[in-house]
Amino acid sequence: MLSPTQVSEARKNRLTPEIKKVAEEENLPPETLIKRVAEGTTVIPANVMRRGKIHPRGIGQGLKVKVNANVGTSEAFPETDKEKNKLDAAAKAGADAVMDLSTGGDPAKTRSLILESCTLPVGTVPVYEATSRARSIHGASVEMTTEELFSVIEEHAASGVDFLTVHCGLTMEALKRLRKRERLLGIVSRGGAITAGWMLHREQENPLYEQFDRLLEIARQYDVTLSLGDGLRPGCIEDSTDQAQIQELVILGELVHKAREAEVQVMVEGPGHVPVNEIETNIKLAKSLCQGAPFYVLGPLVTDAAPGYDHITAAIGGTLAASHGADFLCYVTPAEHLGLPGPEHVREGVTVMRLAAHAADLARGIPSARERAREISLARRDFNWDKQIDLSLDPACAAQLYYSLNPANLKPEGNTGCTMCGSFCAVKLVKEYLKQ
Amino acid sequence: MLSPTQVSEARKNRLTPEIKKVAEEENLPPETLIKRVAEGTTVIPANVMRRGKIHPRGIGQGLKVKVNANVGTSEAFPETDKEKNKLDAAAKAGADAVMDLSTGGDPAKTRSLILESCTLPVGTVPVYEATSRARSIHGASVEMTTEELFSVIEEHAASGVDFLTVHCGLTMEALKRLRKRERLLGIVSRGGAITAGWMLHREQENPLYEQFDRLLEIARQYDVTLSLGDGLRPGCIEDSTDQAQIQELVILGELVHKAREAEVQVMVEGPGHVPVNEIETNIKLAKSLCQGAPFYVLGPLVTDAAPGYDHITAAIGGTLAASHGADFLCYVTPAEHLGLPGPEHVREGVTVMRLAAHAADLARGIPSARERAREISLARRDFNWDKQIDLSLDPACAAQLYYSLNPANLKPEGNTGCTMCGSFCAVKLVKEYLKQ
Repeated sequence: MLSPTQVSEARKNRLTPEIKKVAEEENLPPETLIKRVAEGTTVIPANVMRRGKIHPRGIGQGLKVKVNANVGTSEAFPETDKEKNKLDAAAKAGADAVMDLSTGGDPAKTRSLILESCTLPVGTVPVYEATSRARSIHGASVEMTTEELFSVIEEHAASGVDFLTVHCGLTMEALKRLRKRERLLGIVSRGGAITAGWMLHREQENPLYEQFDRLLEIARQYDVTLSLGDGLRPGCIEDSTDQAQIQELVILGELVHKAREAEVQVMVEGPGHVPVNEIETNIKLAKSLCQGAPFYVLGPLVTDAAPGYDHITAAIGGTLAASHGADFLCYVTPAEHLGLPGPEHVREGVTVMRLAAHAADLARGIPSARERAREISLARRDFNWDKQIDLSLDPACAAQLYYSLNPANLKPEGNTGCTMCGSFCAVKLVKEYLKQ
Repeated sequence: MLSPTQVSEARKNRLTPEIKKVAEEENLPPETLIKRVAEGTTVIPANVMRRGKIHPRGIGQGLKVKVNANVGTSEAFPETDKEKNKLDAAAKAGADAVMDLSTGGDPAKTRSLILESCTLPVGTVPVYEATSRARSIHGASVEMTTEELFSVIEEHAASGVDFLTVHCGLTMEALKRLRKRERLLGIVSRGGAITAGWMLHREQENPLYEQFDRLLEIARQYDVTLSLGDGLRPGCIEDSTDQAQIQELVILGELVHKAREAEVQVMVEGPGHVPVNEIETNIKLAKSLCQGAPFYVLGPLVTDAAPGYDHITAAIGGTLAASHGADFLCYVTPAEHLGLPGPEHVREGVTVMRLAAHAADLARGIPSARERAREISLARRDFNWDKQIDLSLDPACAAQLYYSLNPANLKPEGNTGCTMCGSFCAVKLVKEYLKQ
């Protein structure tokens, strides 16, 4: 007999502990959330193996925008301990979820440690570990068998991973469109490149597409949320919103339908590198093709030309995407395009993407976000610096700046104003003359 | 006899040296630019006293988005030397213009030094200096006479200032609307607060509105570009796009018409704190009410809750505003709302706002921006790290990160890939399997 999932319970109009918790935190009536989970416009990634152990988050329509942080080893930096430090930095900075994207050292060990060490929902991309194993066994990732791939997926699910990125929409049909048109940067998704390489070398359809039902069975068993990856996402502005990208999205929309029939939670991943003027179209198209499934965007990065500042190019794109309906923002760190990030890059990336999520929450009309903006503005009006710092996105940063820019000997009387305006402070002048 | 201005020459279909230079740099036919200057959709701030001494910039429709950096003393930090350091930081980081907003020490001395030391167009807000003088002479800024105010304006114009912020639209009518509705933060513009205080204390109309023709005469004489200030801009998300703000904008639109009749270059300043979902409306409304005049935005800041990160909240708003038609972005530094910025904050603020301007240029379809994104993407595809770093927004930052994240002993053979993906690099895999 199948164990209950969020969807199967919601469709019976039952309140799960996870739906209850999310409804409380989002300040929504539980019945509203039950309806959204039942129809699939909201997901709550929570593997049955980790129920009660994680702090569940709702991702979807009408909810606060959530932020994911990627951690994980690479071949150059294979140490599991370092990833634990990055996990801690992400959690401390307020990430809502983490993905373990390990490709170096012992990925299984890193995954276990991350699953044990945090109460955040955890995601993985099983094809990375499957590739590592295939290289050890066969000497090349293209020799990976379908059984080996599914066995790693099952292992991830059984170990408690809450959401899995699976590049199911990268089919022969989508690859055909990719090859028809010269793309500047081809494929930039690691999972996408591995999958495409495997398919082209073997002249064989993507097994995650052909055997999607098998994937759904695993996901159904553990209530793992499927995150349908965008293996053909654009890797530069010039490649944005092209035939290959949209072909994959069309296929993902069909798979969303199948997943929902199977009582499996599903979200869809999106671009990538996208210029500002194409973001709204991308989001609305994805929401339409995928029947309102939660949309998880990787940035988007609004230019290619700012390595070192890609946490900011992603925050610009993320704010805009989430304002138009994206629900889940994958952070980008200042190290993007340059190397594997360290804990400080993780902290900065999470913080700046949380800023984007908050700005989008204001645009989405989330009452708690509007209230927070109001509260900090009142503190600003009242020269209540402690409260302004407390209510800010990153209180430690605001405090450090405030105290360094306003040395005690320069602070105006009565703790009003600051060293910027002094007696020219508009708020002070208004109080004096407008009697506000 | 009146000396020629950019507008008077353009209306005679004459190519000024400034129009010629801007046309070259924007890669536009000179006749296109002449037409835009003649009709007022583009301005080229260049005081007749500094002709030949500055590197002129065009601001307006169809041109690359420009970035302004504010510098200037405050009462707490009155030293002119420090502002020279900030000016140099702004110029080095690539600002297109600077405004000297000095309110402390000897503002005239700082202004002279800035005008002498840089080839960027320079703007000021004369009411600050007028206020300082009125305080010295009369003991209070509300005692400033209209003659004193105009005398400072004339002094600024005669000293070579290229654009002047003047809060001419803050009229009794606009103030009436401000007082009808309780605003959370009242007035946050320093010039706006000074002007409103003066008007309310004396029960007298704004002299810059009543004697706008006198202002136009000064501007006409020196070909000073007027930047019509938004004294009633919203200071928090809750106050955004309200009656007072839009009333002032309605009046500014009328003044644009008058300025154009007088052969005076004019641009319009805009908000402020604006949520993402209201930015497009704000820009389109301003462009419509002000007959396509160049629009100069202060951010906008897309949330109130991120002191320490306001260079980023402004870059998010700035990108979006400029994508929808704003032409000139005033930077914000990380010190905003906390204190007077130092040179490093200036550098960071300019860099991040240049990122916003570039992202908006991509959205505006500026060919050189698209070409730059293409070039850096090609360098990325080809693992040409030196070129990628060279073409980046901030090469020093990209180089520092790249070399610290990829120690020589960890760099993959042949200078390909990076420590993020190693042999999992999608670009490498694609080259191997897709033969691209």
